[in-house]
Amino acid sequence: MLDAVPRFPAIEPLDTAAMTAARDRWATRAKPPGSLGRLEDLAVHLAGITSTCPPPPIQRPAIVVFAADHGVVADGASAWPSQITALMVHTMSQGRAAINAFAAVTGAEVHIVDVGVNADLSHLEGIHHHKVRPGTDSIAHGPAMSRGDAARAIDVGRIIGENLIVAGVDCLVGGDMGIGNTTPSAALIGALTDTPAHLVTGVGAGLPIERLPHKQTLIASAIERAKQHHDPLDLLAEIGGLEIAALAGLYITAAANNTPVILDGVVAGAAACVAEALAPRTVARTIAGHLSSEPAAAIALRHLRLEPLLHLGLRLGEGTGACLAITLLRAAIAALTHLADLPKQ
Amino acid sequence: MLDAVPRFPAIEPLDTAAMTAARDRWATRAKPPGSLGRLEDLAVHLAGITSTCPPPPIQRPAIVVFAADHGVVADGASAWPSQITALMVHTMSQGRAAINAFAAVTGAEVHIVDVGVNADLSHLEGIHHHKVRPGTDSIAHGPAMSRGDAARAIDVGRIIGENLIVAGVDCLVGGDMGIGNTTPSAALIGALTDTPAHLVTGVGAGLPIERLPHKQTLIASAIERAKQHHDPLDLLAEIGGLEIAALAGLYITAAANNTPVILDGVVAGAAACVAEALAPRTVARTIAGHLSSEPAAAIALRHLRLEPLLHLGLRLGEGTGACLAITLLRAAIAALTHLADLPKQ
Repeated sequence: MLDAVPRFPAIEPLDTAAMTAARDRWATRAKPPGSLGRLEDLAVHLAGITSTCPPPPIQRPAIVVFAADHGVVADGASAWPSQITALMVHTMSQGRAAINAFAAVTGAEVHIVDVGVNADLSHLEGIHHHKVRPGTDSIAHGPAMSRGDAARAIDVGRIIGENLIVAGVDCLVGGDMGIGNTTPSAALIGALTDTPAHLVTGVGAGLPIERLPHKQTLIASAIERAKQHHDPLDLLAEIGGLEIAALAGLYITAAANNTPVILDGVVAGAAACVAEALAPRTVARTIAGHLSSEPAAAIALRHLRLEPLLHLGLRLGEGTGACLAITLLRAAIAALTHLADLPKQ
Repeated sequence: MLDAVPRFPAIEPLDTAAMTAARDRWATRAKPPGSLGRLEDLAVHLAGITSTCPPPPIQRPAIVVFAADHGVVADGASAWPSQITALMVHTMSQGRAAINAFAAVTGAEVHIVDVGVNADLSHLEGIHHHKVRPGTDSIAHGPAMSRGDAARAIDVGRIIGENLIVAGVDCLVGGDMGIGNTTPSAALIGALTDTPAHLVTGVGAGLPIERLPHKQTLIASAIERAKQHHDPLDLLAEIGGLEIAALAGLYITAAANNTPVILDGVVAGAAACVAEALAPRTVARTIAGHLSSEPAAAIALRHLRLEPLLHLGLRLGEGTGACLAITLLRAAIAALTHLADLPKQ
């Protein structure tokens, strides 16, 4: 059992000495100043996260996909039935989802975590079993889960993250699989950025446009209920979901351990907003992998002052966009590390 | 000796049957329709280029960096002296330039080609020696080179490309190294897109802003002279440069051989405009790797109806931005190839 008042680690500010060293090192590389654009800022950021200049190479990146279900799907939040979550977990465990394909391309390992799928997956091999509960309750009718369940789900993300870092993983990517999860994500982003429902509501995984007003109503009522909560754990328990909580825990653990972590799309954006509320300064130690086409994603990133690296119109989740950004982190580090000194003129 | 009227292969239109097959295959993959955004279009494009669905995996990508000098540097076109070109060729041959670092990250091989460096590199190992002439003449005073030299430089790109494809390279990236080469690139783009000098002139590799008007004057006079030429080979001979010509040859050869080729920045944009003029339909078979921050790059891509994959503010050349896009091509192909069928609901 967890404490009812979980403790989060204090997150250190970015290491400004390492960042200054990285800027100084760029200035003496054999290339025109500024000519590597955003990759120069990225290498400086990674120096600040890892307290090392040049930042260490990314040799063992890991994608962690947290899977969970959402009671609100029964109330019409999604184009897809909740059963698809378990089906996709099976597909991922067989290596046949988009994240498996992308991870193979980028040389990353994939960890799939059942933190709250509404199906018995206990006999499925190749995944991590940490089910807190079989999905949330529908936020159309009340809170998604108890405060204790929210804390337990956060702890799943923290424990998985800690174990991977101890095992030698040097870059984390958080992914999500959960039919209906753009609804609580939009509601959390709306509540934490004070943005009305109509601006944060999107079609998610392909909701027919005529059902969008209903989804917006669900999100608006969740945002309204969220306003009673001043504690971020209470807010998370009210809105959900379990994979969002686990992602927040993963980000906090990565930040506390000076390990780069790459945010994916809108679900990651919601989790990052929650993580920052729970453990301030976490988000300054995260990297926005891409801009999802789901509207709340841009709102979350703006709120968090993060600039996404990729703009490819992805909206799949699973960590797919963040996974592709691993190459950019590696390129930024490799350039800062291996470029020759500026030739003397 | 080459013909004074070189012949270029007829380039086939994209294979629409393979593209239709790719679209149909996307429609039955286990993911929401459209959720992989631009990567879905990219896989369809690659099917059209390779006439294969799903497109074959990219197992042996190669970067080809063409190096050459520009007489216009003596007339103040660049912040850097021409000697830096040869120095950077040395640096690349030692594996210590940005392109070497990026190629290592993406698993690509690097070929460096002296097509016109104004220094004796004949004893330098690890590069391809195809010097047509030691740099162009200054376009401040007359044509960059003869029509025969332009044709020979194009042929260097064609021969290198053919040899690599025969050897098993399955994706080409064109890169450039040539102090001063944003000046002829901007002039070619200005001439071929009918855009005035002030819109195509940029700071290149860091020209101090007070010297920008002089660069713009050089480009304006080159564009003016270009207007007398209706034959693209004459235009290329008038403006230069040798690496631009070689890149155009590389693109044409890749297109003629159904091999994907990724464009880099503004020099690539100029070369692609020339390639399209020499061998129509070439550009439909190229992929825009990234958007350089050099202003003429966006103008060239718009003219060519290409949408860049990456937006990272790079302006280094060497093929760096295009190299990073290899990961996106691989991801698009891997997803279309390996994703499970849509689960039955």
